[in-house]
Amino acid sequence: MRFSLPIRVYWEDTDAGGVVYHAQYVAFLERARTEWLRAQGFDQGALKETEHLIFVVHSMSLDFKAPAKLDDLLEATAKLVSCKKVSFEFEQTVERDGQTLVNARVKAAVLDSRTMKPRGMPAGIYEQLHGAMS
Amino acid sequence: MRFSLPIRVYWEDTDAGGVVYHAQYVAFLERARTEWLRAQGFDQGALKETEHLIFVVHSMSLDFKAPAKLDDLLEATAKLVSCKKVSFEFEQTVERDGQTLVNARVKAAVLDSRTMKPRGMPAGIYEQLHGAMS
Amino acid sequence: MRFSLPIRVYWEDTDAGGVVYHAQYVAFLERARTEWLRAQGFDQGALKETEHLIFVVHSMSLDFKAPAKLDDLLEATAKLVSCKKVSFEFEQTVERDGQTLVNARVKAAVLDSRTMKPRGMPAGIYEQLHGAMS
Amino acid sequence: MRFSLPIRVYWEDTDAGGVVYHAQYVAFLERARTEWLRAQGFDQGALKETEHLIFVVHSMSLDFKAPAKLDDLLEATAKLVSCKKVSFEFEQTVERDGQTLVNARVKAAVLDSRTMKPRGMPAGIYEQLHGAMS
Repeated sequence: MRFSLPIRVYWEDTDAGGVVYHAQYVAFLERARTEWLRAQGFDQGALKETEHLIFVVHSMSLDFKAPAKLDDLLEATAKLVSCKKVSFEFEQTVERDGQTLVNARVKAAVLDSRTMKPRGMPAGIYEQLHGAMS
Repeated sequence: MRFSLPIRVYWEDTDAGGVVYHAQYVAFLERARTEWLRAQGFDQGALKETEHLIFVVHSMSLDFKAPAKLDDLLEATAKLVSCKKVSFEFEQTVERDGQTLVNARVKAAVLDSRTMKPRGMPAGIYEQLHGAMS
Repeated sequence: MRFSLPIRVYWEDTDAGGVVYHAQYVAFLERARTEWLRAQGFDQGALKETEHLIFVVHSMSLDFKAPAKLDDLLEATAKLVSCKKVSFEFEQTVERDGQTLVNARVKAAVLDSRTMKPRGMPAGIYEQLHGAMS
Repeated sequence: MRFSLPIRVYWEDTDAGGVVYHAQYVAFLERARTEWLRAQGFDQGALKETEHLIFVVHSMSLDFKAPAKLDDLLEATAKLVSCKKVSFEFEQTVERDGQTLVNARVKAAVLDSRTMKPRGMPAGIYEQLHGAMS
């Protein structure tokens, strides 16, 4: 149940150290979560429109193990490891040829898009998301 | 009547070529236009809220003369050179110690934020903006 | 002979206007040129290592016709329209479902990576690149 | 001994949610560490040139408490809380008008720029950095 998104490293992702800029891995991880949600059938735009439901990053921890370079073909992975009505957590990696470059744990919170306050997911959405864990 | 904004180059602005990533100059130029508008008394947030008026980039041309590097302290300049009710144009530069690194010409269009269609500025706003040219 | 690269719009590409940030199209266009070069058999990393040859953006012009939004699946295209020993030019677009969102013309210069001064391409590389036009 | 860097939020920093894109706070924090190092008399460029010494982010944890918006004037802070010869740690925040928006803890590692392997800082540099803690 681990999801993996191929990501090519372009000039825009790198910095003058010759490697991928560290904050850009955070964006790579977000792309993987977005595609994971899409693969599970969630359309974040529609959730916001029809349910006033948005998912935001609540907290994250990152370990940078090895650098990625220009032109590298990476894999950003996402695995849902916890799911409550008001928040859910992913274990994620960025890898290259099976080598882990970044380890991350990301907690997302569920907010009402009108108030930006925490709220619980409707039961149907919760069950769909919770089911994606196993 | 030339406006100048100091900009420090950070790691995030650079690429693996060891210099500022070319698209980032486009963002530097936008910062200068935003600060120029602020200095003229325009609050883009308020214009959108109260007048449903937004300014978007319609077209631009850029000449890259010399590269900027990490830690450089740059100046991004903006000078309004044309102002009509539905659009206005800037001549801009990015400079370092008086040397021009980038020359740009940027045309902004005036849109209604509700329809995203072109519209004319209200007379008072037009006069204020037009007056900022001379 | 028009090359097209699919590009998904992620949160990182958008701005508070609800659309793709205008400077990010410049990065999208660069991705397309990089992939076009790769498809023609050019490895920019190897060219730098073995030939001390780098390609940098010399100048560009952009017309923004319509905005892209979060989750859009775009096509960034690149077509080589001019090729000399010291520079070459692309016509490029960003499109969505056949609609042109951005038109661009981009001129790249050939530099020696050690001096960052203009230089001519070696004959073999020039012929390979020139041949990719027709 | 807490260092604070003012940071204005521009369009480039925001996303379609109307707030600052979460990965951009990571860049804001890096700007504050870079300016802190500069204020302590460290020139990262010179350290790389003369000592083959570079500082890279080893790991970080982030708590996102409240969002920043376009035009906000933020403060990114940095406080050195631990310093060894091969690594050092910062406690950092991003704040607005005294309200903490992001809490972060960032560990930097010391590498040899030629090998990208861990190494200890020379004694003089270590003492200078260690002294900046108290």
